[in-house]
Amino acid sequence: MAASTSTSKPSPERIFNTMIAFQETEALKAAIELDIFTAIADGADTGALLAAKTGAAERGVRILCDFLTIREFLAKKGTRYSLTQESAVFLNRHSPACLSSMLDFLASPWSRKNFAGLTEAVRKGGTANTTGDHTKPHEDVWVNFARSMAPLTMPMAEFIAELTGAAEGRPCKVLDIAAGHGMYGITVAMRNPNAHVVALDWPAVLEVAKENAAKFRVAGRHTTKPGSAFETDLGDGYDFVLLTNILHHFDIPTCEKLMRRVHAALKPEGKAITLEFVPNEDRVTPPMAAAFSLVMLAGTDAGDAYTYAQYEKMFRNSGFAKTTLHPVPEMPQQVLVSEK
Amino acid sequence: MAASTSTSKPSPERIFNTMIAFQETEALKAAIELDIFTAIADGADTGALLAAKTGAAERGVRILCDFLTIREFLAKKGTRYSLTQESAVFLNRHSPACLSSMLDFLASPWSRKNFAGLTEAVRKGGTANTTGDHTKPHEDVWVNFARSMAPLTMPMAEFIAELTGAAEGRPCKVLDIAAGHGMYGITVAMRNPNAHVVALDWPAVLEVAKENAAKFRVAGRHTTKPGSAFETDLGDGYDFVLLTNILHHFDIPTCEKLMRRVHAALKPEGKAITLEFVPNEDRVTPPMAAAFSLVMLAGTDAGDAYTYAQYEKMFRNSGFAKTTLHPVPEMPQQVLVSEK
Repeated sequence: MAASTSTSKPSPERIFNTMIAFQETEALKAAIELDIFTAIADGADTGALLAAKTGAAERGVRILCDFLTIREFLAKKGTRYSLTQESAVFLNRHSPACLSSMLDFLASPWSRKNFAGLTEAVRKGGTANTTGDHTKPHEDVWVNFARSMAPLTMPMAEFIAELTGAAEGRPCKVLDIAAGHGMYGITVAMRNPNAHVVALDWPAVLEVAKENAAKFRVAGRHTTKPGSAFETDLGDGYDFVLLTNILHHFDIPTCEKLMRRVHAALKPEGKAITLEFVPNEDRVTPPMAAAFSLVMLAGTDAGDAYTYAQYEKMFRNSGFAKTTLHPVPEMPQQVLVSEK
Repeated sequence: MAASTSTSKPSPERIFNTMIAFQETEALKAAIELDIFTAIADGADTGALLAAKTGAAERGVRILCDFLTIREFLAKKGTRYSLTQESAVFLNRHSPACLSSMLDFLASPWSRKNFAGLTEAVRKGGTANTTGDHTKPHEDVWVNFARSMAPLTMPMAEFIAELTGAAEGRPCKVLDIAAGHGMYGITVAMRNPNAHVVALDWPAVLEVAKENAAKFRVAGRHTTKPGSAFETDLGDGYDFVLLTNILHHFDIPTCEKLMRRVHAALKPEGKAITLEFVPNEDRVTPPMAAAFSLVMLAGTDAGDAYTYAQYEKMFRNSGFAKTTLHPVPEMPQQVLVSEK
């Protein structure tokens, strides 16, 4: 898609392409569902070979692969398709960095329903869906999240593990709130053999975290605490409490309520580590962090992407003495480290 | 959205953005439904003023307008929003070039359903929807088309009127097949006071064409012929038969069947004028024409975006002696002129 800017001659092309942008999601979804990228990686590189491999019609595969070529997810030479570098790394299921599963959450029926009600959400100032209070369990949504969204977490999880000083291997106790797939806490445990992690989430979600703890061989130092972060006894004496992608779900008083509980659960020199989309004060930069606000409008009653100033104030109101901001290299999210 | 290419360091950003591309359509849809662009044009340029004007929540409007700013459909300075040049021309309902209505067709429930079944369509080699045989009437779909899609037709309609030599004002008889909103035939009639146009389409669709013929003051030289282009008596002695965006709906034998009827309806020196998305032989360039093939896979049993060689052969098989290709300046479509 050619993106025209406001300084060039106005063209309807970008508006037209936005009106049909949903087609882009569907095309990638079809390719992932038919596992076209892996099939090409395995050598099925023509319409006929891909049709044989995927069980799809040659005509259908040809048209889909041409579209993926136009969008630069594939390359085409004569009648042969090949993976771009991007697709080879991120869309081929043989690749350890494959993130195809993320589509199951990002374009899930729940997520689409949230956005299908966007006009109404703008009118109300909060989601038009019935699942907007994220202090309540919506286990099917979050099990899907836990099963789908692990792939992109690793760079951020490694960054957070470093911030805990994991390499030094000092004994430490970590609470992973709204653990989901559990990979943030699990990564701390992987990098620090003396870390013990308590993962908190809804019961069905914790099953996914437990599977991952076993898969990454830290199950002996990974326990679970089922329930609500607002009601369950969090325990105490933690060196670190991880709050990864949770605060954006709530309004400010609810965030403060949670952070006061976190403050109480930390030992005196303990730290809260928050991973978030943090837009600048203008709320329109940087693009990915700022755009996340719309996802919260569409899907929650009162969540938002908060600025650093907003977080700093929330954390101060919750008893934290000092909060510093740490951009994650090459990722759209940032980490806030709060000291008691 | 930053578009990375296969030569730069692979980044998951473009894949991630494609997984959530449907959100772009919903954001633009919400803005159009709440008529945010027109409200800003009318001076409601802050969240508070926009909320008052549109009846939406200030928080909802703020988040939506920030998102539209990130996507460069708006500009923001402090708390004030303004239209970009593009939005002022194409999304403000006061602008004669406003194309907001196109969303009603391009992102209609029918179009979304076609794409929701894309995986199955690839498997089958044709749409998974029940409306894929476009030789049959699906009047609700095409009435919606006729009511929504007129805005972008004018540059192409003017180009076609020129190809008919409209400015010379010679008496001529024009058949407008699958007329839809009727604007192609109507434009010929507007530019040539001696042209008589017969518009053919399903009965309910022709009501829209009739409204437009009256609106543009050519009703006296604009008659209608309700029914199927494959079955209705087309009449004869036409100087021009217009086939705008119809042939892509069908397979090649069906196109040839229609073109033989067109050939018979033309007078000896008459011409068929076909407007189409015509990809190059590689079927992946130019992008908009080549990408249209996917829309046909998603929505029709056997339609496609055909190459010039394919059209030339179809037209030859249908009795036409010669076909020439005429790109429409600055538009993604091309015109094929076929002589008997």
